[in-house]
Amino acid sequence: MVGDLWATAPSAPGGASRRRVKTLRLDQGGGPFRLELGGQLACLDVAFQTYGTLSSKRDNAVLITHALAADAHVTGDADPGERPGWWKDVVGSGKPIDTQRFFVICPNILGSCHGTTGPSSIDPGTGVPYGPRFPRITVGDWATVHAALLDALGIDRLYAAAGGSIGGQQALELALRFPDRVARIVVLAAAARLSAQGLAFNACGRASIVGDPHFRGGDYYGHAPPTGGLSAARMMAHITYLSDESMRGTFGRRPREQRGGAGDAFGAEFAVEDYLADQGRRFALEFDANSYLAITRAMDYYDAAAWGDGDLVEACRRVGARVLLLSFDSDWLYPPKDCRELAIAFVRAGKEIQHANIPSPHGHDSFLLGSSAMNNFVRAFLDG
Amino acid sequence: MVGDLWATAPSAPGGASRRRVKTLRLDQGGGPFRLELGGQLACLDVAFQTYGTLSSKRDNAVLITHALAADAHVTGDADPGERPGWWKDVVGSGKPIDTQRFFVICPNILGSCHGTTGPSSIDPGTGVPYGPRFPRITVGDWATVHAALLDALGIDRLYAAAGGSIGGQQALELALRFPDRVARIVVLAAAARLSAQGLAFNACGRASIVGDPHFRGGDYYGHAPPTGGLSAARMMAHITYLSDESMRGTFGRRPREQRGGAGDAFGAEFAVEDYLADQGRRFALEFDANSYLAITRAMDYYDAAAWGDGDLVEACRRVGARVLLLSFDSDWLYPPKDCRELAIAFVRAGKEIQHANIPSPHGHDSFLLGSSAMNNFVRAFLDG
Repeated sequence: MVGDLWATAPSAPGGASRRRVKTLRLDQGGGPFRLELGGQLACLDVAFQTYGTLSSKRDNAVLITHALAADAHVTGDADPGERPGWWKDVVGSGKPIDTQRFFVICPNILGSCHGTTGPSSIDPGTGVPYGPRFPRITVGDWATVHAALLDALGIDRLYAAAGGSIGGQQALELALRFPDRVARIVVLAAAARLSAQGLAFNACGRASIVGDPHFRGGDYYGHAPPTGGLSAARMMAHITYLSDESMRGTFGRRPREQRGGAGDAFGAEFAVEDYLADQGRRFALEFDANSYLAITRAMDYYDAAAWGDGDLVEACRRVGARVLLLSFDSDWLYPPKDCRELAIAFVRAGKEIQHANIPSPHGHDSFLLGSSAMNNFVRAFLDG
Repeated sequence: MVGDLWATAPSAPGGASRRRVKTLRLDQGGGPFRLELGGQLACLDVAFQTYGTLSSKRDNAVLITHALAADAHVTGDADPGERPGWWKDVVGSGKPIDTQRFFVICPNILGSCHGTTGPSSIDPGTGVPYGPRFPRITVGDWATVHAALLDALGIDRLYAAAGGSIGGQQALELALRFPDRVARIVVLAAAARLSAQGLAFNACGRASIVGDPHFRGGDYYGHAPPTGGLSAARMMAHITYLSDESMRGTFGRRPREQRGGAGDAFGAEFAVEDYLADQGRRFALEFDANSYLAITRAMDYYDAAAWGDGDLVEACRRVGARVLLLSFDSDWLYPPKDCRELAIAFVRAGKEIQHANIPSPHGHDSFLLGSSAMNNFVRAFLDG
C-alpha cells in the first residue's frame, strides 16, 4: 500500500506557503488505484501536511478533512513565515485541535488541484492532463484515499477525524467505511446528503463552467482556461456559504468605494458585488475548473444512507466512532434540519452522539471561523 | 406625448401568440425620450396587449406590470388559439383581475426584448443594435414609460396597477412618481428595495454572462450569442424564484429519468438539474443577454426610499393610491420581512394599506401561481 515518501520542493503557486507539503504516491497492492464508480488511476499522489508529533503508541493522530476549495495547509502556526492556514483558529498550538497534543494530518483531496492527483494531473497513460477523462470520484473514494495515506504513515487508528461541509462528510464516511480506524468524528455544517436546492446550486456552477466557450469540453489545458465561468460559479457558491443576515450586516446596499461611471454598467457598483467579483477572480486564478466539476459531483452523489440501503438509521449502526455533530442556525447549504436528521439517525441507531445547533450569523462558513461556542464543543469532545 | 398607433403583424418568435401585440411609438414633446440616469432614446416603441373594453368614462383601466423575463402576453383567455399568458390564473374573464370588468393593459418593459425598445433594438443614430450602448434604465423609467403609454391611450387615471416582483415595484413607483394617476396598487412579492443577497445573485448572473467569451463586451449581435452564460444566469436566478421546501417536494434527490452514463459526468444526473438546465436553455433561446443585464441593474438600483431622501416613511407620504401589499412566507428573494418593512412605512405615513403574508411553499414564484388566498385578497381589494 505504501509508495515512496518525500518532501517536495515548492511547485505550486504560493511558494513558501507550500513548502511544508509532503507528497506520497499510493497504490493498491501494486496495481492501479480503483475507484468506487469503476474508474481507476494508474498513479495516485497525495499531498498533505502534518503538524505536531506522532506519539510512540501512534494513538494521537487527528485527520483534518477539507472542503471544496481548501488544501493541505490547515494551519500556519508552526511556521510564522507561512500564510495563515484555512482553519488556523481551530487547529494549532493551544487551539481546540491542539498540535501540541495531536499529530495532525491534512491531505489535499483526490480530484483537487493543490498537489493531490486530479484532472489537471498528467495521465501517465497518455502523457497529457486527464481533463474530462479523469474518472468520476466520490466521498467514498476520499475516505479510501485517506485510509491508504494512514496506511502509508503507519497509523492504524485515528484519535479523531474532523471537518466541515464535505470535509465533515469525509469524516462521517471514514467512520462508515472503516469503522475500526477512527475513534471519534467531528462533523460540522454537514448532513447525510445534499438537498435539492444544494444540488441545484452545484448544477448552476457547473453550467456556468461548461457553458464558457473556453471550457472546450474540459480539454482547455494549454489554452485560455474558462476563468469567466469558474469565477461566476465561485461567486454564486460563495453566496451559499454566507447568510442573508451576514450580507445585510457586512454589505447592505452600500455602493462600492469607487463607483463606476456610466460606461461601467456591467462592472461592480455595490460593495457586495465588488467583494464577490474579487472572490471569484482570485479563485479562478488558483483553482482548476475540472476539479470544481469533479468535486461538486462527488458532493452531489454523497448519501450516507447508502450504507443502509437507503435507511440512514441502519447506516449509522455501522459506526464505531463517537460522534460530534454541529450545525449552524444560519447555514442554508447544509441546513440545521438536515444535520438534525443525521443526529436523530445516530440516536435511533443507539450510538453515542453529541449534537448542537450553534447560533451564528455567518451561514455555512461558520465552521471555518471557529466561534467560541463551536471551539468549546470541539475541545471538550476531543478531551473527553 | 403621443406617437402613432398601429397594430403590428407578428414579428417576434412565437407567431400567433404575439398577434394581439400592439406597438406604440412614444416621445416626449417631439424630442428624444429622456431617461432618469441621463441617457436618452431617439425612438421608443412600446409593445403592449390590451384585454377587455375601456369604459366610456375611461375609469376601468388596470395596468399589469411584468417582472424580469415576461412580456405583454399576460393572459390568453380571450383567444383560445394563443399560448397561455404568464398570469392567466390571475387575469382574465372571471379571474381576480377580471377582463369582463376591467380594461387590462400589459406593456413589455423598456430594455426588454419582446417588442419594446431594448438593447437589441436598432439605434437609429447608428443603424446597428444598441448593445452595450443602450442607456442605463431604472424602475423610474419604466413608470415614466407606462405613464406615456397611458397618455397615448387617453387614460388619465388607472383604476389600478398590479404586478409581482419588479412588476410590483413598478406599480409602487407609479404611485410614487405620478400620485394622481393611479387609484390602487397591488404589490406582490416585492419590497422597497433588493437585499444584499439579492444584489449578490444578480451580480453572479451578470458575471456569468459577461464572463462568457461570446459576450464580446455586449456586441454579440450577428455572432453566436452568450447563451452559455445567459443560461447559467437563468438557472441560478430560477433557484431564487423557488424555495427549498418546494424543491425538496418536487425534485428531492431523484435521478433524472434517463440517467447519463460514465461519459456524461458534466450533464444533468438529478431531476432538479435536468429541470433547471431545460429552463436555462429555453430562456437563452428567447431572451437577450443585454436585456438581462439592463433589467437586473434596474432591479438593483431601485430604492423606493429615494422619494423621501432615504426615509421610506417620508416617501410613502407621496402615495395617493390605496395599497395592497402581499408577501409569501417562502419567498427569499423579496422576503416577507422586507415586504413588511414597506407595509409598516405606509402605516406610519398614515396611508390606507392592506398587507398580508400568505403561506405558500412556492417561494417568490407564488405570485405567478395565484393561490386562492392571494386571489381572494386581490379580488376583494379591486372590488372594494
